[in-house]
Amino acid sequence: MKQYERFISFEGIDFSGKTTQINRLLSRFRERKIEVHVLREPGGTVISENIRRLLLDPTYHMMHPRTEILLYSAARAQLVHEKLIPLLEEDHYVIADRFYDSTTAYQGYGRQLDIEFVNQLNRFATSGLTPYKTFFIDISPEEAYRRHRGAGRGKDRLENEKITFYHTIREAYHRLAEQCPERFILINGEQSEETVSEIIWEHIESIWNLKKQ
Amino acid sequence: MKQYERFISFEGIDFSGKTTQINRLLSRFRERKIEVHVLREPGGTVISENIRRLLLDPTYHMMHPRTEILLYSAARAQLVHEKLIPLLEEDHYVIADRFYDSTTAYQGYGRQLDIEFVNQLNRFATSGLTPYKTFFIDISPEEAYRRHRGAGRGKDRLENEKITFYHTIREAYHRLAEQCPERFILINGEQSEETVSEIIWEHIESIWNLKKQ
Repeated sequence: MKQYERFISFEGIDFSGKTTQINRLLSRFRERKIEVHVLREPGGTVISENIRRLLLDPTYHMMHPRTEILLYSAARAQLVHEKLIPLLEEDHYVIADRFYDSTTAYQGYGRQLDIEFVNQLNRFATSGLTPYKTFFIDISPEEAYRRHRGAGRGKDRLENEKITFYHTIREAYHRLAEQCPERFILINGEQSEETVSEIIWEHIESIWNLKKQ
Repeated sequence: MKQYERFISFEGIDFSGKTTQINRLLSRFRERKIEVHVLREPGGTVISENIRRLLLDPTYHMMHPRTEILLYSAARAQLVHEKLIPLLEEDHYVIADRFYDSTTAYQGYGRQLDIEFVNQLNRFATSGLTPYKTFFIDISPEEAYRRHRGAGRGKDRLENEKITFYHTIREAYHRLAEQCPERFILINGEQSEETVSEIIWEHIESIWNLKKQ
């Protein structure tokens, strides 16, 4: 599998600020007139959005953890082959708001599935496609719950899971970052939004060689 | 994984007569006042039926083979854990109209995916649950196309696939039958419906020890 330098991903527990930071990045790219595609998981194609609807429908509380991981993987397989690989083959910049590391962390470690199989499943769904760099925005579960209360949102994953679940996910991300130090970039997400944004931008400028332009 | 003697499956290429033969079996069971559950794949639970709708929707012709096998596996995972295992744990008789051998034959061999991974995926989706016996009703692809023309049905899989695809699937089933001779029962499906039904019934009477009753 070819590796594409223009493909990066963002990971972290819920409320870590991934989406906010990606939006800040997009503003910077717009200023510099650089086109960047953002892919949100699960979703991004007609088929994947339909799978997303199944995954997020609260009436399906009977969904088995094995069904769940297979549906996430199916949505990703479609996104990768229908959209992501064609974009990368045409030299586009692509940022994934979550990719297979989320599956390893949330479904693999979070639901205590066999990690060796989860790794194989991830490779199968993506045909081996790996992000060139992965920004892991790290916050504590306590901070996630503080942000969640502040946001005053409706029923979401944080309300359905215990805090120990988020400790497991966070530890899983740290483990993944240790296993792939050349790919993961660990960012302390508890700093101010501006600081986090500056740090990420410096990395991106260097990764994508944007200073020269 | 516990094996359940009361769980059998039917396999074969399209138009081999699986469903017809299962219906004939059901009449015999009704006469003998034996309750038997038939599970049709993909489907059988609310979640699995929703996945089935995605799989069979002709507007999703863009579906990638990897997405397809993951959706079949997701539907099966839900069926197995929500319905099949509870039924078997309560000592019910269960007949599956297709099970994971269909995935190995159609998606694995038919779409040329990595068979070793497909086997692992099947084990994962089913938590290792294997039918006690599998009836492989064997007909030639030429016979399948003859029956298809006779049935005068609308657009279905046979019209979308070339005959070589069905030769591949049939060969795959034969290979599986050779690999698991203690599980597979090969039935020549080109005999009359009555003859096939008699042969299957004799096997079932013996497998489930029904003569004694």
